[in-house]
Amino acid sequence: MITHASYGVEPWCLREKVLNLDVLPQSESVFALSNGHVGWRGNLDEGEPHGLPGSYLNGVYETHPLPYAEAGYGYPESGQTVINVTNGKVIRLLVDDEPFDLRYGRLLSHERVLDLRAGVLRRTCEWTSPAGRTVRVRSTRLVSFTQRAMAAIAFEVEAVDSPVRVVVQSELVANEQLPTSAKDPRAAAVLESPLAAEDHLAAGRRLRLVHRTRRSGLRVAVAADHTVSGPDRTRTSSESGDDIARLTVTSALDPGQRLRLEKFVAYGWSSMRSLPAVSDQVDAALAAATDTGWPGLVDDQRAYLDAFWAHSDVEVDGDEEVQQAVRFALFHVLQAGARAERRAIPAKGLTGSGYDGHAFWDTETFVLPLLTYTAPSAVAEALRWRHATLPAARERAAQLGLQGAAFPWRTIDGSEGSAYWPAGSAAFHVNADIADAVVRYVSMTGDEQFARDSAVELLVETARLWRSLGHHDAHGAFHIDGVTGPDEYSAIADDNTYTNLMARRNLLAAADIIEHHPEQAAALGVDEEESAAWRDAAEAVHIPYNADLGVHEQHTGFTRHQHWNFAATRPDQYPLMLHFPYFDLYRKQVVKQADLVLAMYTCTDCFDEEHQARNFAYYEPFTSVVQPPDCWTTLCSRRESLPSRAETTSLHPYLDRIDHDPWLEARIADTGPVWLDFYVNPPPT
Amino acid sequence: MITHASYGVEPWCLREKVLNLDVLPQSESVFALSNGHVGWRGNLDEGEPHGLPGSYLNGVYETHPLPYAEAGYGYPESGQTVINVTNGKVIRLLVDDEPFDLRYGRLLSHERVLDLRAGVLRRTCEWTSPAGRTVRVRSTRLVSFTQRAMAAIAFEVEAVDSPVRVVVQSELVANEQLPTSAKDPRAAAVLESPLAAEDHLAAGRRLRLVHRTRRSGLRVAVAADHTVSGPDRTRTSSESGDDIARLTVTSALDPGQRLRLEKFVAYGWSSMRSLPAVSDQVDAALAAATDTGWPGLVDDQRAYLDAFWAHSDVEVDGDEEVQQAVRFALFHVLQAGARAERRAIPAKGLTGSGYDGHAFWDTETFVLPLLTYTAPSAVAEALRWRHATLPAARERAAQLGLQGAAFPWRTIDGSEGSAYWPAGSAAFHVNADIADAVVRYVSMTGDEQFARDSAVELLVETARLWRSLGHHDAHGAFHIDGVTGPDEYSAIADDNTYTNLMARRNLLAAADIIEHHPEQAAALGVDEEESAAWRDAAEAVHIPYNADLGVHEQHTGFTRHQHWNFAATRPDQYPLMLHFPYFDLYRKQVVKQADLVLAMYTCTDCFDEEHQARNFAYYEPFTSVVQPPDCWTTLCSRRESLPSRAETTSLHPYLDRIDHDPWLEARIADTGPVWLDFYVNPPPT
Repeated sequence: MITHASYGVEPWCLREKVLNLDVLPQSESVFALSNGHVGWRGNLDEGEPHGLPGSYLNGVYETHPLPYAEAGYGYPESGQTVINVTNGKVIRLLVDDEPFDLRYGRLLSHERVLDLRAGVLRRTCEWTSPAGRTVRVRSTRLVSFTQRAMAAIAFEVEAVDSPVRVVVQSELVANEQLPTSAKDPRAAAVLESPLAAEDHLAAGRRLRLVHRTRRSGLRVAVAADHTVSGPDRTRTSSESGDDIARLTVTSALDPGQRLRLEKFVAYGWSSMRSLPAVSDQVDAALAAATDTGWPGLVDDQRAYLDAFWAHSDVEVDGDEEVQQAVRFALFHVLQAGARAERRAIPAKGLTGSGYDGHAFWDTETFVLPLLTYTAPSAVAEALRWRHATLPAARERAAQLGLQGAAFPWRTIDGSEGSAYWPAGSAAFHVNADIADAVVRYVSMTGDEQFARDSAVELLVETARLWRSLGHHDAHGAFHIDGVTGPDEYSAIADDNTYTNLMARRNLLAAADIIEHHPEQAAALGVDEEESAAWRDAAEAVHIPYNADLGVHEQHTGFTRHQHWNFAATRPDQYPLMLHFPYFDLYRKQVVKQADLVLAMYTCTDCFDEEHQARNFAYYEPFTSVVQPPDCWTTLCSRRESLPSRAETTSLHPYLDRIDHDPWLEARIADTGPVWLDFYVNPPPT
Repeated sequence: MITHASYGVEPWCLREKVLNLDVLPQSESVFALSNGHVGWRGNLDEGEPHGLPGSYLNGVYETHPLPYAEAGYGYPESGQTVINVTNGKVIRLLVDDEPFDLRYGRLLSHERVLDLRAGVLRRTCEWTSPAGRTVRVRSTRLVSFTQRAMAAIAFEVEAVDSPVRVVVQSELVANEQLPTSAKDPRAAAVLESPLAAEDHLAAGRRLRLVHRTRRSGLRVAVAADHTVSGPDRTRTSSESGDDIARLTVTSALDPGQRLRLEKFVAYGWSSMRSLPAVSDQVDAALAAATDTGWPGLVDDQRAYLDAFWAHSDVEVDGDEEVQQAVRFALFHVLQAGARAERRAIPAKGLTGSGYDGHAFWDTETFVLPLLTYTAPSAVAEALRWRHATLPAARERAAQLGLQGAAFPWRTIDGSEGSAYWPAGSAAFHVNADIADAVVRYVSMTGDEQFARDSAVELLVETARLWRSLGHHDAHGAFHIDGVTGPDEYSAIADDNTYTNLMARRNLLAAADIIEHHPEQAAALGVDEEESAAWRDAAEAVHIPYNADLGVHEQHTGFTRHQHWNFAATRPDQYPLMLHFPYFDLYRKQVVKQADLVLAMYTCTDCFDEEHQARNFAYYEPFTSVVQPPDCWTTLCSRRESLPSRAETTSLHPYLDRIDHDPWLEARIADTGPVWLDFYVNPPPT
């Protein structure tokens, strides 16, 4: 959790007035820029110090073997991890003889502002070198929503009170050394030097590097072009090597004089296209962007965001901090999904390497609902990505002895990347979550083309999964046994209520949609018997209920289990999963992610108001956020100030992922009631 | 399963009349000799061909890191695996210019006999070399029950129909190359060259090699001495290197003439003693054995076994094959445990590297009951080994947030070696199984010394574990949730009946023993409140029961689960665990190891006869042996011919481990009814 007072409260900005090097990893995530295709962490222009240098391209990953001390049938053999691609944002500065490095000399002022309407990150600082030379450095950075291959930086250095010689080095750097990963399972696997050099160029003010990932075989090209303006004494030169390309600008500034650099960086990648083709691709993007020019890119960015905010803003009266958090969250969700375009929207967007850059069920459950009402075309793209991975999902279902499609718990390319099946593959609800997002998108947009080419197949194949996964008992009730629900502190349980209700919805939606699309249904081999079996199963779904307590069970037997002893749990034992065995967490009443309470949100019509209140009151005390309970009560106490559809299902269930060292990714799950989900980044060190 | 007709039926021997190279790994296991301290697989004297060369010393293992693609709290970081120590049984033979290798030339006859009364393995063969020279080779091998460091071989070669030059090379060989392991999780990790050379010697007819394991730091010494008798033209020489020491005997034999070699091999190891100390240890053992001489060792071996059989034999009327299997089983159990002496008795004894040489709960449940009535001092030693590992078990309990001691699921040195907790650490019943063995031993022997110095502490610490592992519900019933019972096709279930009944027995036994040993109880800090809590928990233990079906449940909810579809399971899909995900096995009614039925055997008094019959009838159809059902029905059909205490709890539950390529380790679990447990060795390929 962010406990320091770094950020001021403003309606349309996130302003950091003092640079705190201790929480650099956090601020790099908070100030990350992305359009869903290209992502740049908020690293300082000069590259160091850093928490984690990060430049990401959606879909660019490397594979690595998944080791098992005791292997089992169906365990995935290969994992995928997002890689740090070529860093195009480095602009180093030499002031007289000394590198501009904030760890040395004296920092007179430092401010960074993420402007949520302009879509840019601005930095201003004044620094006195160890030798006593003072400079003012300003930079503005953007990752373009309108030209998806492009990011750009305007960089200025100004002499303050005495003449200085300055050297500016604008670079493309590949295979940066990364901090080694922590033992936290949420951190990413670190792959050393994942990029093999294929080509490099430095021609005038243009730079280009082309690499290829060693095992996944993806070709990545990055090109940069520059405009330079400064005093007459300004000179430029450039050079390139396998892993670095550099433009060097030298100048001498009198007090008040400035050297200004505009840097345009184009990214492109492909699993299939040749080296010349990918090189041409980034050169073309660069040509278009330099033609637009810096002011044009900035104007386009604001116009894009003006349009977004015009129909997406949520106004909060009476709580400026929540107002800011809501807009910050809307902005980051837009950044994560806007231009993903048939690629996954990862758990962290393109802001860091946490969770290995994988996409989870959270995309469909927490991200797509918001985008459905604010950027619906991004939702179609995201669901078409799922549709494109159907072959892998069908193969996985067959491997597991099931019908239809079993979508992966975590993935980049569509194959299952979960190496611990009780918390991964067993969480089949991801399939119903995808189906739910499909239904929401189609009903909101009426996109018949999508319904025909994607929705029917997605709903049918997931319905088939549920029908084969569950079974009718001797009394006719339909059970889904041995699965894991949203809550990762329980696993492999019978009749998880959330899963069962969502599966029911999935089964009914499939039965409904084929009535409207008989041709597609026939092509998929669905007959009346099959859809009748879906409806039978849906109508007979068993929902476990504890009549003594008058509450619904998270899963069969949950409410009979021993209560977690919070009183005996020390503050330094949170998050629980790092200090207690899964064995103990699974068998006790303790909840990580809202599960039964989430079911009440997604399937509100299945619970009367009395049960909503009673269930919420029952489960709240067991819900262990990653921090001890007293850390989030202050946040929970805010819920009165939020617009809320049902008092019983409120802010609280989505506060379950607050970490000790997070970046704050407040997400809005719906435009009706406001749901905040503070997501966290594991610290990269 | 052994389907070929290699072995004849005789009451006191296992005779192989034809050598079948295809099943060499099996016969090496079947003909393995051991005294519980030293073990030699039944490899051919000449070393090759082999399935798996194997020489084992109880307690000699190497450690290796346990990798996890997704690590979790409390996962063991280091695994242990039994290693193949220096091979002292190799005696190669050159006939004229050609190596005696049964893959070449012509094998006129080959017979091996395991003599269960003499305790020796005899081999006789007649072979014609590719060049047409015929020799008769005889060897007799023993691993001494009376001199536990010693193994010995009498080897003879005889010229049959023409004069031959012969060279006999008697060797000690370290770091033999091993076949790489299969993907079967039951196979051992193969460590390359685990032994680092420390010393070697060849002096006259004496050989010695000393090595040390690289990571576990165990020093292993092997020494050999020889007597040689043959024609006058017989000459000997010797030499040694890091990994080999060799005595070479050359001779020329006329038809009917013999060259005879007696080889005495002494083994010793230590984690603490110096190189000279361990060298002296094996030299001393060798001196004692050569003083006894070959005939003396053979006589002592028979005398030891005469005493064993006098009070341990089980006579079976009317089924000679079962009679043989019973004695074979008794012999192998004796071999596994006789001289283990404060070391574990591994799942495979010292006959192979299957299951990494680990000991499991099976030791206390299937091996110690037999030894309690036949070799009780071996039981005291085995349980004192468990007692010696209490510090590790207490540490493990603390790590898991529990009281008392949590003994490991699989181990060599006492630390948990299970890398898949749902089928390992969660199977807490191992603790009750140990307690049960303690109670059985004390009640059978009345060994008060053991009761005072070991039994009280073992029972108290395991009772503490159960008390902290379980909890009373709102109605007072005592539940043990989220554990794994004996059946490995279920895991992480609530109120496993076997576990609960055995825990109850454990709790009551602890409460009883402290009444007789108040001093020991006080030293362990047990007060009346604590023992009352044990009795309360024991009396309130919940046993799940399905009233509709009138059967006890293996665990809560088991009988409501979907039935495994045996009809749709192809013969090539057995064993199921290699062809279906744990996910699917766990959530369906399918049983690998007898579980509820085992509970009826160990806690017969808890089930009336009607329920014994009904439960057995219910669970039998779900019990999937490793082979398809129709392969074991023939074995089951034999049960009428066995003495049986309760018709309802019969041979069948112990037939659940028959493999497609096993060695047959028939075990007798008790001297009352005869329980056969056919254990298997995964094929070393």
